[in-house]
Amino acid sequence: MQITILGGGGFLGRKLAERLAADGALGGRIITGLTLFDLAQPAPLAAPFPVTCLAGDVASVADVSHAIPPGTGLVVHLAAVVSAAAEADFDLGMRVNLHGTLAVIEACRKLSAPPRVLFTSSVASFGGGQSALLPDDARQVPTNSYGAQKAAAELLLQDASRKGFLDAVSIRLPTVIVRPGRPNKAASSFFSAILREPLLGLETPLPVGEDFRVWVCSPRRAIEWFLHAAAMDTVPLGVDRGINPPGLAVSVGEMLAALSAAERALVKREPDAAIAAIVGGWPAEFAAARARTLGFSQQEGVPEILAAFREDDLDATRTDRGL
Amino acid sequence: MQITILGGGGFLGRKLAERLAADGALGGRIITGLTLFDLAQPAPLAAPFPVTCLAGDVASVADVSHAIPPGTGLVVHLAAVVSAAAEADFDLGMRVNLHGTLAVIEACRKLSAPPRVLFTSSVASFGGGQSALLPDDARQVPTNSYGAQKAAAELLLQDASRKGFLDAVSIRLPTVIVRPGRPNKAASSFFSAILREPLLGLETPLPVGEDFRVWVCSPRRAIEWFLHAAAMDTVPLGVDRGINPPGLAVSVGEMLAALSAAERALVKREPDAAIAAIVGGWPAEFAAARARTLGFSQQEGVPEILAAFREDDLDATRTDRGL
Repeated sequence: MQITILGGGGFLGRKLAERLAADGALGGRIITGLTLFDLAQPAPLAAPFPVTCLAGDVASVADVSHAIPPGTGLVVHLAAVVSAAAEADFDLGMRVNLHGTLAVIEACRKLSAPPRVLFTSSVASFGGGQSALLPDDARQVPTNSYGAQKAAAELLLQDASRKGFLDAVSIRLPTVIVRPGRPNKAASSFFSAILREPLLGLETPLPVGEDFRVWVCSPRRAIEWFLHAAAMDTVPLGVDRGINPPGLAVSVGEMLAALSAAERALVKREPDAAIAAIVGGWPAEFAAARARTLGFSQQEGVPEILAAFREDDLDATRTDRGL
Repeated sequence: MQITILGGGGFLGRKLAERLAADGALGGRIITGLTLFDLAQPAPLAAPFPVTCLAGDVASVADVSHAIPPGTGLVVHLAAVVSAAAEADFDLGMRVNLHGTLAVIEACRKLSAPPRVLFTSSVASFGGGQSALLPDDARQVPTNSYGAQKAAAELLLQDASRKGFLDAVSIRLPTVIVRPGRPNKAASSFFSAILREPLLGLETPLPVGEDFRVWVCSPRRAIEWFLHAAAMDTVPLGVDRGINPPGLAVSVGEMLAALSAAERALVKREPDAAIAAIVGGWPAEFAAARARTLGFSQQEGVPEILAAFREDDLDATRTDRGL
């Protein structure tokens, strides 16, 4: 099985690539090659199969086609401009999030057999806000450009699946915690920062109240969902290729409770109306019944999420940041 | 008020242009100019204001910008490749229905004040089938490329409205009856043909049973909805710019009952499983409660629809077809 990861230099793309290298197979099929594609050329990866690392523009059909060679059976499309960045630069968001997906569809159409396409959509494609518990058939009424672009991309991938150009599964990822690295431009960055920064001994701002609720998943759980979506039987999905996976509904206070008192003291209340306005529009909980029926596994609790971060990413984050 | 109609050479575009010419004003504002834009240059129109007729490509930002001059207050975006054509030619559908709308957004962004954009989406953007009575918050899970492209375009227009680039209202039109002209290969063609052809003294096939239900509107009612959407206060819409207007849920039998016995005898039962499978996927009824609250008027019954066709379009259809 030949695999391509678009956005293969990113946080989740790298984790998925490392997992594929460790497993050597996916869904019982031997992996014969992996292409990692990103704006900047992804770092080399040791693996039991050839790994090609390419730099390119995801909105360029030529670049994306080059990254999806004949025989590709799985395309993992993680390349995205995240929420706050897409809000700040509308054209960049449209280019990467919408036209990038159109380029993926075009590139996949050129293959002799339709590849599985795993697309990461987002909780940000829904409205609803703090009081929402969204059913599986909830309408996507995004309140931000990132979410609108992701929802539009889902529709186009769904139709491309119906047409037989590809075979898409779109996972609407919850807010992923704990992300390593530094605080970034995602409006949701603080959900990771309020756990990560205290573990690094650093102060960090909290822009919303402790009763603010958020729908989250861990990087480990996201990778499990990716592997399931990459190998699952898509016939039971029918036309509807969107999956609300079984994440965890948790309050900021419940997240902070997993820290020690000393760590918690490093989280500083600094209300930020702009950030609250964006994340406040996202639904705080999903039913996710269909995903469970389809075999997507349940996100564990915050203590397990924090333990996984300590195990997987804390040391590397400390090193990367010179701490 | 300067107005542009994209798709101004089409059936509904022409009717709207003629109505604007007759009224000379819209929502209490004097019309100062009208641009009609279509793939082929629209025919001249006598009006109490200057009318510019342009040929161009709706997917070209340059062409569309030329058709939307500075000071334009209303853009009516009717340009589309319809269901059967978009299904037969995926690239053409994407070009006109998706990239055309992207060009409209780009052209509107260049104006100094955001224009009202009236967009025609479609019942084909929903699934559901004969048993469905779709609530206002029903999710769009299209089962055809036309519907997917329209739903994606709605999302992007909605976000462009939120960003202040334009001020969109998207009307998801029911099946429009009675269309003038000839029967064609479109799956929905028979809904007009079973009324129009008998009035012309011609036989016509009926591919579904008489209990088959369909969500319809008349051309007259569609124009009234357009005029309301063009002038309404959009603040109550909030982020959600999609309108399911108050159409009419009617069975084929109820439609035929509006004909005389002699006319009805010209409608020949010719079951067609392929056509039934396509139109059978469309929802047969919508709640349309929100639209009523927002002041969209109710579609009248079949007798009124038939009377309007006799008054507005029957003679011209007879002449056009040499009957």
